[in-house]
Amino acid sequence: VRRKPARGSYERDDIYQIVDDGLICHVGFVVDGQPYVIPTLHARDGDTLLLHGSSGSRLMRHAAEGHPLCVTVTHIDAIVLARAVFNHSINYRSAVLFGSAALISDPGAKMDALTRFTERLIPGRWDDARLPNRKEMLATSVVAMPIASASAKVRTGMPSDEPEDLGLPVWGGLIPIRQIVDLPLPDEHVPVGFALPGYLNAFVQSRSIAEPLIVAD
Amino acid sequence: VRRKPARGSYERDDIYQIVDDGLICHVGFVVDGQPYVIPTLHARDGDTLLLHGSSGSRLMRHAAEGHPLCVTVTHIDAIVLARAVFNHSINYRSAVLFGSAALISDPGAKMDALTRFTERLIPGRWDDARLPNRKEMLATSVVAMPIASASAKVRTGMPSDEPEDLGLPVWGGLIPIRQIVDLPLPDEHVPVGFALPGYLNAFVQSRSIAEPLIVAD
Repeated sequence: VRRKPARGSYERDDIYQIVDDGLICHVGFVVDGQPYVIPTLHARDGDTLLLHGSSGSRLMRHAAEGHPLCVTVTHIDAIVLARAVFNHSINYRSAVLFGSAALISDPGAKMDALTRFTERLIPGRWDDARLPNRKEMLATSVVAMPIASASAKVRTGMPSDEPEDLGLPVWGGLIPIRQIVDLPLPDEHVPVGFALPGYLNAFVQSRSIAEPLIVAD
Repeated sequence: VRRKPARGSYERDDIYQIVDDGLICHVGFVVDGQPYVIPTLHARDGDTLLLHGSSGSRLMRHAAEGHPLCVTVTHIDAIVLARAVFNHSINYRSAVLFGSAALISDPGAKMDALTRFTERLIPGRWDDARLPNRKEMLATSVVAMPIASASAKVRTGMPSDEPEDLGLPVWGGLIPIRQIVDLPLPDEHVPVGFALPGYLNAFVQSRSIAEPLIVAD
């Protein structure tokens, strides 16, 4: 029996963690038998996935009509270098959610949903920025997709080489990959001496490089 | 007329650059009216997109049957913080390709396609690792999707605030985001003193942090 990295089935909390850790998702939908895959931001409210966008966008109009959707969130964690080309792989975490959505029309519920998008992206931002006015609320659609089913696929760990390949003079292991943030860039309208707010600094610190990288040469 | 960040139409070379810069894509396909979105590696040969995977996988079997596909590649470049919640955005580059695929059955063409996947991921790896044997070739499917149509959406630049919001005491600008690689982690089978090959070192250097980040506080 060959050792296989774990790519098994996952519990709801594990799947939702993958969803919540993702900055964006890819939404799949079907028009006249043709699949479309569109990247967009997402948020989650319990067992409901939230999507938002311009009220006129095709994705929002289509989703609001209740057609079936597939929402996928993927993280890339490493390139897996095995001795054999065939055993090369990617360490990743991917969640796939299925369901159909409906428009959130209640103004209070819609404002709550928008709060989730902003606070999920950068905690503290909602209370700092100017909140949506009536015209902006009308220009934005939010749809809620109860998660009808969900699954995850995860690969972790080192390469799985054939035993007979292990003696080959080929480097094997992982090249870790991650998404980081760099220092914030203020626009021209930020007054000189205007300090980065604490919540933004906290966000940047939590996602930037923890320690300087030294690349071997 | 309000200033709008560029999200216009793009030439083929611009679209292909987005595709080629992406480590993975998300493939959309339809089974019985239900959309599916699956992350996978891709490669490109001129106006043809290549996908590969286990011969038994649903995606490979479905793609080989010639059903319509949508392949999307997305890069996230920054979180765009405007003074108003409504004007928050993401700087991103996204390419969407449409077409239908066919299996590559010719052994030479299949080996050429696999070379592209490996060399695209890490140039130099193909000539170092053990090449696929007959059994491994049979276990792998490669499909070629002539790109029937393609488009890109790109947002760049600073936030687009309403003029009346610019005086608000709210920080506005970009939080840049990028994908980096960390130092390679050899597995337990790499002999002590076995140097990282030059092509791997070059790859890591080209994608790691160019300079240490210092986070303001």
